[in-house]
Order: sequence, then structure tokens, then C-alpha cells
Amino acid sequence: MPGISIFGVPGLPEITPGADLAKLIAGAAAAAGDRLASGDVVVVTSKIVSKAEGRIVQLDDVEISPYARQWAEKWEKEPAVIELVLREAKRVVRQVGPVLITETHHGFVCANSGVDQSSSGGHGLAVLLPLDPDGSARRLREGFAAAGLDVAVIVSDTFGRPWREGQTDIAIGIAGFQPIYSYIGQVDPHGHEFRVQAICTADELAGAAELVKGNLSRVPVAVIRGHQWERDDTATMRTVLRESERDLFR
Amino acid sequence: MPGISIFGVPGLPEITPGADLAKLIAGAAAAAGDRLASGDVVVVTSKIVSKAEGRIVQLDDVEISPYARQWAEKWEKEPAVIELVLREAKRVVRQVGPVLITETHHGFVCANSGVDQSSSGGHGLAVLLPLDPDGSARRLREGFAAAGLDVAVIVSDTFGRPWREGQTDIAIGIAGFQPIYSYIGQVDPHGHEFRVQAICTADELAGAAELVKGNLSRVPVAVIRGHQWERDDTATMRTVLRESERDLFR
Repeated sequence: MPGISIFGVPGLPEITPGADLAKLIAGAAAAAGDRLASGDVVVVTSKIVSKAEGRIVQLDDVEISPYARQWAEKWEKEPAVIELVLREAKRVVRQVGPVLITETHHGFVCANSGVDQSSSGGHGLAVLLPLDPDGSARRLREGFAAAGLDVAVIVSDTFGRPWREGQTDIAIGIAGFQPIYSYIGQVDPHGHEFRVQAICTADELAGAAELVKGNLSRVPVAVIRGHQWERDDTATMRTVLRESERDLFR
Repeated sequence: MPGISIFGVPGLPEITPGADLAKLIAGAAAAAGDRLASGDVVVVTSKIVSKAEGRIVQLDDVEISPYARQWAEKWEKEPAVIELVLREAKRVVRQVGPVLITETHHGFVCANSGVDQSSSGGHGLAVLLPLDPDGSARRLREGFAAAGLDVAVIVSDTFGRPWREGQTDIAIGIAGFQPIYSYIGQVDPHGHEFRVQAICTADELAGAAELVKGNLSRVPVAVIRGHQWERDDTATMRTVLRESERDLFR
């Protein structure tokens, strides 16, 4: 039965501001013997997108508000990091001990507004989420198109979630196809409407990509081949972000 | 670069109580030309597990409590279904309009306690979640082992989640390997501890399997090949279920 295959793209250099990611990814895939092909879904870890876009902050340069300083002292955290977490947040969803669960300006709910010290490529630096991850995905898709490749792009990150331990990779930016596949109006073989109304394939693809990327192996890009997607250049992750008042789980 | 491949197992018959699922799955895979191999992860939709285990209820036979009847009348729902939803629930997490978000006796938070009318194989029936999905996965793993196959097993279902539209497939039962891969204590190439502490690979595998199973195509089983997993027969989904008091997102 036809299925899908997923492979990582190894051998990328350390990404610096201004890097042409699409070109680097296509080159690294070809060098590894896995040339990209039209129809592929390319899943790119947000970290390298942020680095290419210069979303790296020197912690020494951050002006720290009294509130961030107070909070950092209380919980023995780095004040500049707390300042960045608060700046990147639209609201603090919960604050439990030293952990801040925030809603970012994009509308993502995650720990510490996605501010990351671990993959910053050096001490004293922090990496912020891309300003507009959909835009980042779109530019990557355009970059691949310039090389004759009609591929879909997902920008992914690793988020926690309520009720379940363990994080999973999910989509934060998308280009080329709608993140949600809808069954609404379709009926199953028994004539019942589907209990499942809409599947967020973008998140399932992002999670599947994590399985080959891992976090130790420094493979920040994975390619998913064989997944059918319908071209749609109006796609945005905004259709996945649920408005508070519609959220039955909250 | 070595990656993973995922394919569906088509051609399974309608599953009835007492069916030997492991045997049917191995047979269907072989008939489709995709013989199972040791090392595979076999992801089985909970629906067919429930059917094999006789977790099917004739709605006419359900004794309805006054509360269920009242609630069903208010929201124009089938009283027997509401009765089952309440019976399968440890607590009602939220009740918004006609939708009940419940915590099941297993500890899963989902809509309508996972009670499903859509895939019941006929009108007037409902399918309940397996009583003990870890046990179901374990028995499947043992069934495959009896045929000389050392495979991991995930029992999956389709759940909604807070903050994000669209459902995804996640694991509700597991056998053969731990559902969470931990990075705790490991350091990245820059000497930082990992921001990501633990990945719920079981959920990522379940979601990846959904990409080939779909819901229209009636392919309730998928095989993931090439994913590295460490044999551990003490695995249980209980390690994924977060205790309320530890849940920062709630």
C-alpha cells in the first residue's frame, strides 16, 4: 500500500542572520543523496528560522523592567530572559513557581513565550520565535519554488500541552496547504456523520517530522514524502488558533 | 539518511467480538504485500480494539437515569448515548451547550468520554473505549509475538485539545516501549541543558499513523517502520497522564 516516508536533512551549517535557508536545505538534502521533490512537505524547526531572521538577542543588551527583575530574583532566573518572556507575551496564562505559561503575540500558548536559551549557539544569547511564522514558511516556499520545487512548508516548535506529560512538535507556521483537513458534511460507510470533524494534519506532520529530527542529533529539518496535500497559498495557522470564547476545554 | 516509513494495512474484515486482531492484522498486511517485521510499531485505532473486545452497546438496552434523560431532552441528544457518556466519565470537565468534555475512568480528557456512534457498524449501537487500553496493546503485542514478531503496539484515538482547532490522533494504550523519551540530564552541543525535557513519542507516532489511516478510507491500522524503540514491557500510558495538581496549563 502506498504510504509516506520521512527523512531528516543532515549536514546544515550553523545558521546565521540572513542565511538563505531554502537554498541551504535543498543543497544539504541533495548532498545527503535525498534530493527534494515537488510534492514533499518540508518541516523546519523554528529555531533555525529564527536564527536566519536574526531573532537572536544578546542578553547583556536587554533593558530589564523592575517587574521582570523582581520576578527573576524571586525565582532565581536570569532577569534578561524573564524580560524577553514577558515582552513576547500577549498575556500570562499561568504562573506557577518559576514557570510562565504565556500566550504569545501570535496567539500560541506555551512555556516562556517560546524564548529559548538552549539552541542559541552560545552562552549569553536567547532565540525568540519568528515574528511571523506563516510569513517565514511562505518565504521558504517561495525560495524552494525559485529552484523549481513545489513543496509545502511547516515551521515547527516543541510545545507542552495540558493534561498530558511530554512535549510534542506542532506547527507554528505553514505555507502551501491548509493546516486542517475537514470531514464536515461527509458521511461514513454507515451513513453517520463523522464524529471526527476536522483533523489538524499540520500538527500531525510536525510531530511525525520530530521522530526523525530528534533533539540531540542536530537535524533541524525533515522531509515528508507521499503525503497528499492540496495546494492553497492562502493557508495560515490562524485557522488553528481557537478563540478563547470557543474553547470548550478551557 | 535513514528515515521512517509509514503504511496502512488495508483489507481488514469488519471486526466482531472475539476476533483475533493480531492474526487478522498480520494476515492483512501480508496479503497487501507489506509483511510485518520485528521492530515495527503497529498503531491500531481503538475502535476495532473495542469491537474485538465487545465494547459495543445496543442503545435500546441502556437503562437511562433521570439526569441523563433530562440533559438529553434539553439538548436534543439521544438519552442512551448521554447515559453512556456519563457512565464512562470519572468527572465532567466542562459542559458547554450540548458538548460534554469529560475525564474518563482511565484519566483521558476528551469529548463525550470517547463514546462513538459513527463507527459502530450500524445504527442503534455505540462503541465505548477499551476498558484497559494498555492491556489491549499488551495482548496485541503478545499475539504478534506468538507469530514470531517482536513489534511495539499503540492503541490510538482521535481527540481534541485546548487552544487549537482540529483534532489529532494520540496514544491511549501502549505496549513494548516507553511512551515518553526523556532528555533530562543530557546536554546539547553548547553545553546547555535541553529546553525540551521529554518528548511524548507515542503521541507523535499515533498522529503520524493517522496521516495514512485517514477516516474515510477505513484503514484502521498503520505500521511505522524504521523508528528506533527500546524494548520495555513495563510501559503504560499512565506515565503520560498528568496529575491535576502538576498541570501548569490547567
